[in-house]
Parts: sequence; C-alpha cells; structure tokens
Amino acid sequence: MRPVAVIGIGQVKIDEHWDLSLKELAGNAVFAAMQDAGRARVDSLFVGNMMSGSANRQQHLGSYIADWVGLRMHEAIRIEAACSSGAAAFRSAVMAVASGQLDSALAVGVEKMTDSPIAEITTELATAADADYESDMGTSFVALNALVMQRYIYEYGWKHADFANFSINAHANGVYNPFARFNSPITLDAFEKAHVVADPINILDASPVGDGAAAAVIVPLEEARSLNHTCIRVAGSGAATDTIAIHNRSNPLWLKAAELSSKQAYNQAGLSPVEIDLFEAHDAFTIMATLSLEACGFAEPGQGPRLAIENQIIPAGRIPISTRGGLKARGHPVGATGMYQIVEVVQQLRHEAGETQVPDARVGMAQNIGGSGSNIITHILVRED
Amino acid sequence: MRPVAVIGIGQVKIDEHWDLSLKELAGNAVFAAMQDAGRARVDSLFVGNMMSGSANRQQHLGSYIADWVGLRMHEAIRIEAACSSGAAAFRSAVMAVASGQLDSALAVGVEKMTDSPIAEITTELATAADADYESDMGTSFVALNALVMQRYIYEYGWKHADFANFSINAHANGVYNPFARFNSPITLDAFEKAHVVADPINILDASPVGDGAAAAVIVPLEEARSLNHTCIRVAGSGAATDTIAIHNRSNPLWLKAAELSSKQAYNQAGLSPVEIDLFEAHDAFTIMATLSLEACGFAEPGQGPRLAIENQIIPAGRIPISTRGGLKARGHPVGATGMYQIVEVVQQLRHEAGETQVPDARVGMAQNIGGSGSNIITHILVRED
Repeated sequence: MRPVAVIGIGQVKIDEHWDLSLKELAGNAVFAAMQDAGRARVDSLFVGNMMSGSANRQQHLGSYIADWVGLRMHEAIRIEAACSSGAAAFRSAVMAVASGQLDSALAVGVEKMTDSPIAEITTELATAADADYESDMGTSFVALNALVMQRYIYEYGWKHADFANFSINAHANGVYNPFARFNSPITLDAFEKAHVVADPINILDASPVGDGAAAAVIVPLEEARSLNHTCIRVAGSGAATDTIAIHNRSNPLWLKAAELSSKQAYNQAGLSPVEIDLFEAHDAFTIMATLSLEACGFAEPGQGPRLAIENQIIPAGRIPISTRGGLKARGHPVGATGMYQIVEVVQQLRHEAGETQVPDARVGMAQNIGGSGSNIITHILVRED
Repeated sequence: MRPVAVIGIGQVKIDEHWDLSLKELAGNAVFAAMQDAGRARVDSLFVGNMMSGSANRQQHLGSYIADWVGLRMHEAIRIEAACSSGAAAFRSAVMAVASGQLDSALAVGVEKMTDSPIAEITTELATAADADYESDMGTSFVALNALVMQRYIYEYGWKHADFANFSINAHANGVYNPFARFNSPITLDAFEKAHVVADPINILDASPVGDGAAAAVIVPLEEARSLNHTCIRVAGSGAATDTIAIHNRSNPLWLKAAELSSKQAYNQAGLSPVEIDLFEAHDAFTIMATLSLEACGFAEPGQGPRLAIENQIIPAGRIPISTRGGLKARGHPVGATGMYQIVEVVQQLRHEAGETQVPDARVGMAQNIGGSGSNIITHILVRED
C-alpha cells in the first residue's frame, strides 16, 4: 500500500438549501475541492450518502454526480454506512489510491434533508437502527441516545449540566466557521433551560440536521509532494463494527467499535492519543462526544465530562474537539458529516482555521459514528513539512 | 496488488419471500457461502443493495448483516450503484483483499422487493435514472429501454421476433437452476404473443423482480491454492461510467461504459473476447443483452441479434449467456443480481452447472449494468488447475 495525501478540499455552508438540488450541492463541493487541488480531472468518485433514495427520490449517486461534474470515471459508487457514510466514502477512496488500483479519487459526502418534513426525516434516521427490534418499537435515534445518557449519568454520578461545555465549545467555534449552520454562541444558562427532546437530552445536547456537501481530492503522497501544496498525509484509517442494537452490547456505555477502529488508526500511524493535536469527534449528542473521547484513550471510562468541565476540549486545550463547530454547531447532514470532519482536520493542519486554529497543529484525528456506535471509522491525518 | 480468488459461494432461490426479513435473506446466502468456503470467520463485508432504505425501511446494511451473522468486522459497508450494486460490492471486496488492506472479504448482494406494491417498486427503480430530467417526466425504466429498442430496430432493420432467442435461451437454462425464479421454458409463439409493456418491449423481453441474495467469499490466491477447492481466480475487474441520461449520449445505441469496463477487464486478465467461454450478461431486457454483447466485442455494432438467431448464445454455442437463466428467468432482484452473476460464473468454472454446463469452461465473464448503461462493471474469472 502506497501512502496517500489530501490535496484539495471543498465544502458548502450547511443550511436549508431549497434552491439547490442534490447534484448541485455535491457539485459545488466537488468543484471547490478540484479548484483547491488545482486539477481538472480525477479518476474516481466515492459518494457518501445515507438517504437520497427516499428523501430525494434519487439513487445511483456515483454516475449521477460524475455526470453532473462532467467527468467519465473509472469508478463511481455510493457508500452507505448510515451516519458514518462520509468517512466510509473517504476510506474507500483512500484505499483505492493506496492500493494502486486508481491514481486519484474524489470523496464527497452529500445529504439533502430539509425538503422532507421533519417527522419523515426522524423515520429516515431510524433506518440506521435495527428495523425489527428498535425502530419498529418506536425508538427514535434521540431516544436511543437518551437511554444511554440516562444510564451514563446513573452509573458515573454526573449531572446534566456537566455536559454543557461540549455544546458551548462547539457553538463558540462555529461562530467563526462560515460553513457552519449556526454562527451563534450559547451560554450555560441557555443549555440548562433548553427544551427537552428525550430526557435527559435537550435541544442543545443534540446536533441539527441540514443540507450540505463536503469533498476531498486524494492522490499518492509522492505526487502530492511534487505539488505546491501543504502536504496532508493520511497516516491511519481504521474501521470496526459492533452490534446494531445497543441492547445487545455487554456494556452499552463503551464504544467498542471506536476503541478498535482508533487502535487500528493509531497503529497504522505509529502514534498514540497524546500525540493527537485535535480530534473532530462525532458529537451528534453530548453523550456521544463523551463516549468517543473515552473509547479513543483521551479519558478514563466515565471521565469524559471532566475534559469538558476543565476546558481541555477548546482550541487551546489538551485535546481540542469540534474546532469548526462540530456536528452540534456546524451541523449534521448525516451522510456528509464524515467528509466535513476530514475537510476541517485538513484546514487545521494547513493552519487555515482562523480564529479557532489549534496552535501548531500537525496531527489531526476524525471519527465518524454510524448508528448508535455500530459502525465507527477513524482517520489520522498528518501535516508533512 | 496481489491476486485473489473466490473460495465460497452461496445463494437463495429468487422468489417472493414474505416469510424472510432482509437480514435473513442476506444471512442465508452468507452462511451458505461461508460453509462452501469452509470458514467460520471473515474480515469484512461489502453489501450490494439498491433500495432497502425505502423498500424495507432499513439502511446501514453493513453493520446490520454483520451483526446478524454474528461477526465483528474490520469493515462493513453498503455499496450502491443502482442495478450494478452487486458487482460494485464484489469489486470493492476484491480490491480490499487485493490491496492487502484486508485478508478476507464477503461480498453479498441482497434485495427484497416484493413486500412493496409493484407501482412503488417501479418508482423506486426510476431513482436510478436522473430524477430531474427522466423520472420526473414519468419515464420508467421499461420506457427508457423501449425507446432504445425502438431506435435499434429502426436503425439496423431487425424485427421484434429476432430477439426471441435471448428469452428462449434464458428460460431453457432456468429450468435446471433450482435458484431461478422461473423454471419453465417458453416458446417463440409465446414470445411473439406476450403482452406489451412499453412498445416494443413485451413481458417476455423483460426480467422479473424478486427477493434474493447471493454471496461470495474472497481471499488471496495464495491462500486459496492451499485449500482443498477448485481455485477460481479473479483475473480482471473493470468499471466505467457514462451519462446518467440516455438523451445525453452521442450514440444511444452504444454502451460506451460496457466497452471501457470490458476493455479494462480484458487487459487486466490478458485475454480477448474469443477466449471467453461464457458470459453472464445483464439481460434485464433483450435489447440490453444485445447492446452488451456488441460493446464487449462479441458482435459488430447492430449485429447482436444474429448471435441469438444463430443459437450462438446457448450453453453449447460460441458465447453462451444467461447459462443459469440470466436476469430474464433466474430473476432480477436489482442490488443482488451482480452477485448472482458471479456465483453462476463460479458454478460454471467449477463444472458444477449440471444440465447447462458449458463444456470445459475455464474463463467466465460477468457484466452488471447500473441505470440505462450509466455504470457498468465487468469481471473475468479464471479456473486455475
């Protein structure tokens, strides 16, 4: 396997894009990434998307987007792994170039969610859970996460307000990200008084849906080095699965797939958690950010909230997360999220993150979670110079 | 890239499986393939499926099926490329093992279509076309293929009955395949008198939908050689895209993506059309079988029907197609079809195809078509001994 690098990134602002079709959203991110890479052609296209078949009445996104951007591809497929579809597409693109099978790849995550009524989208999201044992019982994704958070608070003795800084940090960083859905800071008071969605999860624990697309161009490292770019190497890629239903896990408070996939990525990169300068975690809910930090070795089991309370997760902290707003404030267009994380890590490593730049960032990690922890994909990117 | 081989195959009969859920269908094919391979474990899972999100309210098939078959995977994703999802999943699995990234892979194609009313399925299938310019105008997939067939007949001077042997051969072979949806032969008279669906396509030009799943286990060739199996090597894999809408092609009667992807596969395998002993073509409609044979170099442009008329496509002919019934008689559960084709090629190369065995078959080709020719994937498999 030859080493590979990201040489171009592109994204659109996450919003309610009623005036843009699915292909225009994806196309805008693709064109931005191609322009950033300084390329007119690319060999292959890997599209991360969860729900276009039902939400947009459009499948076959590989050919559909390839055609729209005017390229004939040697490969053009859609990868679906629920909310981890974005990272899954990036991983497939990375592997295709790393293996020598293809010489360049575009990974794009796209999701257009706001054309459908919100009740339908809640039902769509539930298709990531087990239809026979979870969704058909009426359990939405918020409800599943609420059960986990309730149990976590009971087991480890935290209170709801202890999770506040996950959201406060995300919103504080989102203020400076022009691509974020929300550019407004929030206060502890607002967090504590927000409407409850599914006890104990309130509206400020939870990430918003939206329409969005983000893309990256991947080429062999050797080629990237010859270009006039800051070279961002993909140093590690790991993936692992767990049971699809939470009730089948021996410990519902431990993201086993996050532990396994981050270990794979650490081993490939030859790095350990202390060497990670920033971590784009999957903060779909504050409890998910907590569990992710613990499973990846940044906190002891049950101690994730301490990192937030002690302000270790802000850009100047020990392990900055959600540096561009995270899922919470940047937004969570499900199948696109994993690609936004990659784009944001690249921005940090290029030192193009402006007001929320992590000082001298050289090693960044992104973790994308599908379902309630049943498919977790971790990437480590390293600045080369 | 290291060479890889198929060491296990499994399939379920294509039918209306109202008593089996999506995971049971997929699981039955997976268990059969694992048993055939003599393995209890496998590293990764690549699921080909087109429409489970809407037809079955279930996405996230990677984790969902991995969990059901009781395995924790290093990778478990769904690949969607409309009707070519099956071959796309096989190709991803082959590449993952060939690259050294993974040591074993399961590819499974699964589709469960008969729980939804047929009108809904017609709408689902149309999501493979361009929603903005084809589906929204009311053009179904049969209608698109009918336009192509009408034009083909006009340009090259054939009549509808000249396509009869494509269906007659498929049904004759399906009689002997216990996994085929239809086990009944048809006559020329029946073909000529069949109800018209969209002129000139009648019900016996078109393939039936159904519920089905087919799977294969892929390992490095070196490992396969050490096992007590007939070793079936994956000698070539090619993929290419074309415009998603037929009306954007300079020649709507030429499958450019079939030409390009078959050339890739021939080049990789170091083989030419005359060396192919059998060809599992994508005979979703008789016109598609025709165009596929021409684009892959088995007939001159406009001369595909001659192969059928001269009986060159039967098991004892020059280029046998649909040897186990093809899409026409075996059935076309869309996202599973590409995997049925692979399973059937393996059966032929192992000389386990019974009454429709192609004499001394050593080289088999399978071609899976997504949309109306917008994503075409070709594989060449070779018997090693």
